[in-house]
Amino acid sequence: MSFALTILGSSSALPTSVRNLTAHVLNVDERFFLIDCGEGTQLQIRKYKARLGKINHIFISHLHGDHVFGLPGLLSTFNLLGRDSDLHIYAHSRIKSILNPFLSHFVPNFNYRIIYHDLKNDGLNLIFEDSKLTIHSFPLKHRIETCGFIFREKPKPRKIIKDFIDFYHIPIKALPGIKNGDDFICEDGTVVPNEKLTHPGSETHSYAFCSDTAYLENIIPYIKDVQLLYHEATFSEEDRARALETFHSTASDAAKIAKMANAQKLIIGHFSARYKDHSVLEEEARIIFPETYAAEDGLEIKL
Amino acid sequence: MSFALTILGSSSALPTSVRNLTAHVLNVDERFFLIDCGEGTQLQIRKYKARLGKINHIFISHLHGDHVFGLPGLLSTFNLLGRDSDLHIYAHSRIKSILNPFLSHFVPNFNYRIIYHDLKNDGLNLIFEDSKLTIHSFPLKHRIETCGFIFREKPKPRKIIKDFIDFYHIPIKALPGIKNGDDFICEDGTVVPNEKLTHPGSETHSYAFCSDTAYLENIIPYIKDVQLLYHEATFSEEDRARALETFHSTASDAAKIAKMANAQKLIIGHFSARYKDHSVLEEEARIIFPETYAAEDGLEIKL
Repeated sequence: MSFALTILGSSSALPTSVRNLTAHVLNVDERFFLIDCGEGTQLQIRKYKARLGKINHIFISHLHGDHVFGLPGLLSTFNLLGRDSDLHIYAHSRIKSILNPFLSHFVPNFNYRIIYHDLKNDGLNLIFEDSKLTIHSFPLKHRIETCGFIFREKPKPRKIIKDFIDFYHIPIKALPGIKNGDDFICEDGTVVPNEKLTHPGSETHSYAFCSDTAYLENIIPYIKDVQLLYHEATFSEEDRARALETFHSTASDAAKIAKMANAQKLIIGHFSARYKDHSVLEEEARIIFPETYAAEDGLEIKL
Repeated sequence: MSFALTILGSSSALPTSVRNLTAHVLNVDERFFLIDCGEGTQLQIRKYKARLGKINHIFISHLHGDHVFGLPGLLSTFNLLGRDSDLHIYAHSRIKSILNPFLSHFVPNFNYRIIYHDLKNDGLNLIFEDSKLTIHSFPLKHRIETCGFIFREKPKPRKIIKDFIDFYHIPIKALPGIKNGDDFICEDGTVVPNEKLTHPGSETHSYAFCSDTAYLENIIPYIKDVQLLYHEATFSEEDRARALETFHSTASDAAKIAKMANAQKLIIGHFSARYKDHSVLEEEARIIFPETYAAEDGLEIKL
């Protein structure tokens, strides 16, 4: 079971010689969920060994160019590689009218289907679910409609204690229920509580992506107790006026959100090109939330 | 006087972990002429220290995505950086209807003017001229209309031999004419030929860009005697069938063109991702044209 985040780009709208535009890829058991797709994302995917063929879901937080301009190249490349499986894109509904006329000039015929899922802007919305994972979107606060995303693994099966199974002569057909938390009722009617028969399942992993956004306490309930929180920190407190003006956050803002959400770890990124040394931002956040780390292109965090 | 080419991207349509999509930048006396603009070009410009603020002219050979998808990001970045000087784009006339609707979603107001120059497809056409340089376009042969570009410095002033100037008492006002090749007529009517008074001016530099194209001898007169020729070599002779099918060249094709054009040096590029080791292509070309070098991202050739 893998659950690992790779930062593909960590700059804000102006890239630098070492920071590409925003894109993250979350590897959940070798399924690669791509979050945002700034220019150069397909190149970063190759550089950092994420697997193009395993990307079936792309999440676009908002329709600013620095989060979107990598899509035409990536979608064209999928086609050149002979992709035939469906691709799901979760984004603001306007993406279709923006992207499709442009793409149609360059890729007259797609070998594969692109299925668009319109993001809503009204609270927590389930946008993906399978047997192991849920993904919800939630509104952020930026100059245009913007969504964050929260990836949560579902509770994992409890681990059966074999000795008790033998002791109570529990039949095989009862085991799936017990792994999911059922008590066992013996032939004489005695109830054996599940906690006696099992250990808790493995830890469930979770990751929240919050960019671009002004400081927004409304998101706390959506990302509560998240293991790994990515929150933008475009500016330092010294440049708070600029943060307010552009609907971005400071490093302190990001740290406050992480603390209030009871996150385990905070990654900050989307740094303005004005900061040559991002440690200023890391230090500012660590005063409030010590488990803060600055994003770097290529940084991988395994949970 | 500088005249230097930097390869920003050397892959064909599918980039690799070490080869970005096509873009070249030609530095002529600190004016940076950008040729093609594949995805990631603005990132490569930063990486290889070309100067964004000195790019006023962009040449787009043809409207395939791997030569174009870097434009939205680059033009947006110019705007974010506060550019106010005109930007000239030389491309097929369709570029406006393709690019402008897409860009208008992301950059509602440009601070600067974009001036489009439509490329013609009927022989050698002068598309840029100033006191030092001419740039012509000429048709290549690809699946869609495609142009090559030839950059030629104008002849440089002849160098006056000071001793003869003193000997013939030549007045200062006559010197500009002599630098441009005039003879000098003495007071007694004697004609002193220019060759006696001057040495030839410095060598004039030239660079031709030919991508994407099938083998096409028609271009020879346009690029005759060029110092540095870039010619695509997507395939090796082993894959000639694929080259014919896709209207691309083999390394041997590129070398033949270089030889017939009497080029001084050949750079090949736009390599298919199928070749892990480009030396195969370099060796194939060198049999015909020994002064062949394979493009690498970041390669700089100073003339």
